[in-house]
Amino acid sequence: MAPSALSVLFGPTPVREHHPSPSKHAVVVQASVLTGPKQLHVENRLVPDPAFGELQISIKATGICGSDVSYYKKFRNGDLQAVQPLTLGHESAGVVEAIGEGVTGFRIGDRVALEVGVPCDDCRSCQRGRYNLCPKMRFRSSAKSVPHFQGTLQEKLNHPAKWCYRIPGNVSNEAAALLEPLSVAIHSTRRASIEPGDTVVVFGAGTVGLLVAAMAQLCGAANVIIADIDAGRVQYALENRFATKGVVVPILTPGKDAADKLQSAKVLASEVLGEAGAEEEDFEGCEVTFECTGKEICMQAGLYATRPGGQLIMVGMGTPIQTLQMSAAHLKEVDIIGIFRYCNTYPTGIKLLSSGVLPSLDHMVTHRFKGLGSAKEAFETASRTTDRDGNLVLKVLIET
Amino acid sequence: MAPSALSVLFGPTPVREHHPSPSKHAVVVQASVLTGPKQLHVENRLVPDPAFGELQISIKATGICGSDVSYYKKFRNGDLQAVQPLTLGHESAGVVEAIGEGVTGFRIGDRVALEVGVPCDDCRSCQRGRYNLCPKMRFRSSAKSVPHFQGTLQEKLNHPAKWCYRIPGNVSNEAAALLEPLSVAIHSTRRASIEPGDTVVVFGAGTVGLLVAAMAQLCGAANVIIADIDAGRVQYALENRFATKGVVVPILTPGKDAADKLQSAKVLASEVLGEAGAEEEDFEGCEVTFECTGKEICMQAGLYATRPGGQLIMVGMGTPIQTLQMSAAHLKEVDIIGIFRYCNTYPTGIKLLSSGVLPSLDHMVTHRFKGLGSAKEAFETASRTTDRDGNLVLKVLIET
Amino acid sequence: MAPSALSVLFGPTPVREHHPSPSKHAVVVQASVLTGPKQLHVENRLVPDPAFGELQISIKATGICGSDVSYYKKFRNGDLQAVQPLTLGHESAGVVEAIGEGVTGFRIGDRVALEVGVPCDDCRSCQRGRYNLCPKMRFRSSAKSVPHFQGTLQEKLNHPAKWCYRIPGNVSNEAAALLEPLSVAIHSTRRASIEPGDTVVVFGAGTVGLLVAAMAQLCGAANVIIADIDAGRVQYALENRFATKGVVVPILTPGKDAADKLQSAKVLASEVLGEAGAEEEDFEGCEVTFECTGKEICMQAGLYATRPGGQLIMVGMGTPIQTLQMSAAHLKEVDIIGIFRYCNTYPTGIKLLSSGVLPSLDHMVTHRFKGLGSAKEAFETASRTTDRDGNLVLKVLIET
Amino acid sequence: MAPSALSVLFGPTPVREHHPSPSKHAVVVQASVLTGPKQLHVENRLVPDPAFGELQISIKATGICGSDVSYYKKFRNGDLQAVQPLTLGHESAGVVEAIGEGVTGFRIGDRVALEVGVPCDDCRSCQRGRYNLCPKMRFRSSAKSVPHFQGTLQEKLNHPAKWCYRIPGNVSNEAAALLEPLSVAIHSTRRASIEPGDTVVVFGAGTVGLLVAAMAQLCGAANVIIADIDAGRVQYALENRFATKGVVVPILTPGKDAADKLQSAKVLASEVLGEAGAEEEDFEGCEVTFECTGKEICMQAGLYATRPGGQLIMVGMGTPIQTLQMSAAHLKEVDIIGIFRYCNTYPTGIKLLSSGVLPSLDHMVTHRFKGLGSAKEAFETASRTTDRDGNLVLKVLIET
Repeated sequence: MAPSALSVLFGPTPVREHHPSPSKHAVVVQASVLTGPKQLHVENRLVPDPAFGELQISIKATGICGSDVSYYKKFRNGDLQAVQPLTLGHESAGVVEAIGEGVTGFRIGDRVALEVGVPCDDCRSCQRGRYNLCPKMRFRSSAKSVPHFQGTLQEKLNHPAKWCYRIPGNVSNEAAALLEPLSVAIHSTRRASIEPGDTVVVFGAGTVGLLVAAMAQLCGAANVIIADIDAGRVQYALENRFATKGVVVPILTPGKDAADKLQSAKVLASEVLGEAGAEEEDFEGCEVTFECTGKEICMQAGLYATRPGGQLIMVGMGTPIQTLQMSAAHLKEVDIIGIFRYCNTYPTGIKLLSSGVLPSLDHMVTHRFKGLGSAKEAFETASRTTDRDGNLVLKVLIET
Repeated sequence: MAPSALSVLFGPTPVREHHPSPSKHAVVVQASVLTGPKQLHVENRLVPDPAFGELQISIKATGICGSDVSYYKKFRNGDLQAVQPLTLGHESAGVVEAIGEGVTGFRIGDRVALEVGVPCDDCRSCQRGRYNLCPKMRFRSSAKSVPHFQGTLQEKLNHPAKWCYRIPGNVSNEAAALLEPLSVAIHSTRRASIEPGDTVVVFGAGTVGLLVAAMAQLCGAANVIIADIDAGRVQYALENRFATKGVVVPILTPGKDAADKLQSAKVLASEVLGEAGAEEEDFEGCEVTFECTGKEICMQAGLYATRPGGQLIMVGMGTPIQTLQMSAAHLKEVDIIGIFRYCNTYPTGIKLLSSGVLPSLDHMVTHRFKGLGSAKEAFETASRTTDRDGNLVLKVLIET
Repeated sequence: MAPSALSVLFGPTPVREHHPSPSKHAVVVQASVLTGPKQLHVENRLVPDPAFGELQISIKATGICGSDVSYYKKFRNGDLQAVQPLTLGHESAGVVEAIGEGVTGFRIGDRVALEVGVPCDDCRSCQRGRYNLCPKMRFRSSAKSVPHFQGTLQEKLNHPAKWCYRIPGNVSNEAAALLEPLSVAIHSTRRASIEPGDTVVVFGAGTVGLLVAAMAQLCGAANVIIADIDAGRVQYALENRFATKGVVVPILTPGKDAADKLQSAKVLASEVLGEAGAEEEDFEGCEVTFECTGKEICMQAGLYATRPGGQLIMVGMGTPIQTLQMSAAHLKEVDIIGIFRYCNTYPTGIKLLSSGVLPSLDHMVTHRFKGLGSAKEAFETASRTTDRDGNLVLKVLIET
Repeated sequence: MAPSALSVLFGPTPVREHHPSPSKHAVVVQASVLTGPKQLHVENRLVPDPAFGELQISIKATGICGSDVSYYKKFRNGDLQAVQPLTLGHESAGVVEAIGEGVTGFRIGDRVALEVGVPCDDCRSCQRGRYNLCPKMRFRSSAKSVPHFQGTLQEKLNHPAKWCYRIPGNVSNEAAALLEPLSVAIHSTRRASIEPGDTVVVFGAGTVGLLVAAMAQLCGAANVIIADIDAGRVQYALENRFATKGVVVPILTPGKDAADKLQSAKVLASEVLGEAGAEEEDFEGCEVTFECTGKEICMQAGLYATRPGGQLIMVGMGTPIQTLQMSAAHLKEVDIIGIFRYCNTYPTGIKLLSSGVLPSLDHMVTHRFKGLGSAKEAFETASRTTDRDGNLVLKVLIET
């Protein structure tokens, strides 16, 4: 029976046939590898041909995230201990060098952003579109899956085309790399119920806090108050219109016991709300609080600062076990919503960057380093809030 | 004058009056009264003391709405035939002149916006916060309730304090009057599920369409396409940043039969989407379409223009019985969402006006008339899309 | 008796009284009054004519709630200290004796359930239908508002008709009284996102826990696991089909420190889930956990027992300050949702009782006492989980 | 460099490697093939080895759907014309015969239900969990994709393991086959906002209508009214507790014009609601109407029968272009929600069947035919509402 007749009877030819051809795109590349605390080396690594469904990408820009810094300093991040050499970096953009079988929609030379978490595509969370909760998720530069899923601080790598996104001409590689923290902010505001005119409080004016504040405004919040202990960051937020109001809060000495701590949190909540509702007789707090510091006191203050029926969004990780006045959440029906990474955010983020409705992400990159050899210096810089010259450190980027 | 005659003129007897004390704030005022098509007169009307829970308000500004124009021309609006003398006007702001018993939170001299629909406060819809659906709603200037609930084109009136809102110093009386159409726009975008980055289509660039477009941007829509047959309105929308893109559409001659009409609607949808998704390979239509014209062809086009999983929001009233390709809604799961007035929008609208995140509403007032005596001229102007001098007519306002 | 003294006894002066007509329905009735811990007396009280919008109701049945027991024992409930004589009781039904002005829809002799919380009807929360969050809420039998808003353990009282609900012939007074705890359960399941087929865990098999479990099944949960330390309650739940599965949990000795406690909570979570997901390879926990005990360890266990993307609903009050492993909520995006009383639940509850889709509420009344004179005995009984004869105590009711 | 060392550096070995081995599971099977209207033959078909990610399944039971009957009679279904020989059947269960590479979680002999629509897994709709809206969806037995994706009326076939679901021992193959129409019902009630106690109207008492009615009850609807022109189906619904109330409606002669038709629809709505709200003074219609007939008059009646703020769910396909009184949807804010197939329903359906909370699906199978040779007789039977002996025809099933 002829093949064409067969195809009529048997339906379309399965697309996943594999033709073993001679390797064309296997290459040896340089990679930044961490082998212990502050033990950062550049090594050679073999990148094979892109497999079925994969792209081979030449990495152009990688932003450094707080979790990267944590691994760099301690070879661990929270509860996750690295057990093998680990390449860091997960905020990345690059250029397509080679295209695996079965891939459509990409051409050599396309500039792409990488979504570096690869979920199983088959579990309940994946099926329902909340793939960030996939229990089998492999996430680049994290020590959770063993063998570790290596990060993007290498010259080239292969990545599933499904998790790569073409970026338009008016979006720089740097901005595209920052789609990763922007994704956290998009996911955070999606899980919140911001309504035009709302008052929003954001604790923390680091990269994520700033982007959350900008997204809150984009969702119509008329009054976005950002709070940080670093005056430079607050100033940056206001000058660049990430927030409508900024509050520099003092570092509070932790009290002796829970009651003390909660009292400090009440003071903090009061300072942050400040004049927010001065004109409203019936002001009862902000509609939504985003906690982007990972500090227990900010979660505590968030419960006090949020109005009845509002939401406290936990964005920042940091203090796993927290003592909170849950009765505040109870009596006011303030919902506590946890944020773990993001899902379905890259296409949205690209539209936002391309249309120019957000403050410039390029401008958030305060420090750029060239080449993998400069990684150590980059991580050292990213560890600080100001550089040696006293300039604000926000986002540090390594270009390759 | 006999009580029965009075009740016709003055509306239903307030039920909560109970002070046997001498009247202090009962006054005779002038009112603009419509007694038949284009039969508009200024008459005297007795405004009694404000009853329990009421404010007595001196009206300062009233915008003219399409439904007012319809009553003016035909003494009816859609299916609603006026059966008694009717004072028009429901987009209003004024100043508190007297305060009834049991009222707190207001002082003489406060500037207020009036929400002119007074629901029963007791039915299921009211209890659940969707009071716009209250079956016992009395709405000023509408002929639905008999005796008619008289409109705001009178010098003073008494209104429940619960439905009056103090306006801050940086919001003009004119902008406060426009809180009414803004409320329709707020309600429309609340019922929609706009997400930052979305593409939105708005059919109709009249007051409501413009405000819906502005609200869609405020909700994060990156691409807001407004369409109208009037080039002046589209130009206005673009110049004043109500929309990001404008399309002037031709008046389409209605086809002979349903198939013809639907074909025209497909053409219209295609024209309006235009280059919207040119850069997206997988463009399947806009996320949300707002129909603000009341025209059947725009509803039809909306079903074609909206992407799978999107929404078609019916804002404009006009064609009660429509022939639609419902299979489009079916196969694409495009939800059709009806908008009837608004609820819980005034406090939000006031925050938006005060914070300056919207285009200027004052600027939308293209024509101002002084005094009730000019009402006839005001209605004639509001009936046209350009005035005698060829200037665009958007919002016509009567100041008193 | 001087007016000021009267106001202490009779609650705040009704503001809308205004009939100078001779009193027809003012009556002296007996009331159960608590003046200190376990100081319960029957006293005379004057009930005036029903004011505008009010019904005068002869109370027939009042259930005793845990908060009532707390006031009875300690003259306080949590942070709320009673400062005046206080009549307890807020789960009530009765018969209409007289009808105030302005009331429609009721006739003398109608049997009604009372919703005893009276909100302001004017604030943002009220307007939007979440009136349980009204900051001016006056709630009968609670010491929060001063003068206290007196409870229903009196022969007659006046109550706003708006907050009274006619009950159909097939619903007993006793079941109608239990609409109050049923309301908590309805509100709890509404705020949850139960989907048919879900697995649900309920901590606590008291009245509210049982009703929450029944409501969860009514929402389609296929697997409802109820857990309590009292074997009798668990047995009751299973025999009467409130739950599909019951777990008797041991009283856990609180550990020395947070880590110990959390470890105990993990064990508890594991015991409660038990065989729940034995057949599912990818079982990750229940979809929704309802915490109805107010115990910190159950909240902690709830965070462990709930699957990624699920919800932990805080129903039971008890431990204001809690130490929780918030990272579990963070990494799994388990939303923590607080429940404070209820709103818009009475009409729903009446439909459910009338249609017979719930287990019998009459059957939940394990102990009935006749007359206000038996109140002390009733409260003593309600303080225990079994009576002197060793029978299960669930709901104690006083009939008048 | 040793492979193990490589894996440390390069991450886990790609799992999709393909080892061309000699074919073990390619088999020739019999298939029922339709080549024109009523041209049904049994032919031989080659089923190759299961490809990567696929299972080879021996089909045990296939239910016949209305769309199958339509293809059988006209070689087309609505707008879809078959252009090649087409095997029908998409409601199916079977047994795993062979397992392709890369598949985990299945063993030979497992009984499975097949979800026969295979989406692209990569588009926006797929990513967000609404894969039923995937524009590249291939659906077995539908003529939409060319070459047609062949249906399940064949002895064996290969299907992606991702879209197969293991069924527990207490669920029969027949019930498992009916997971397909149950999925439509689950999806329909998910998209609706049924609340415990609600009144629901279902137009149509065929398989889908019955299952929708059962699901509505499972979601807590206290009052489910099912309406059909066939008295036998209505009786079946009531006897088997799919609905709480049934209405046999007359076949209405279509009126001359739109006004006539709408008048008939009003009468229909009134008949169906009947005594539904007799006890509620303020009855305004049912909360949700499910239209499961595809008839225009039922959509029209649904708009009249639904209360303000309610929903009209379009389940049944049939009349692509409909004339509706959209002003009813407008003024009452009745949302019109389209249902296209289903997504994420199979795991839910399996839990529901296994836990026994639904009426028996086996019982719905009124006619069983053995072997593909009996397909013609099966289709003829499925074309009628009663068989030759006058017995009700509900679901017809072919066992293989």
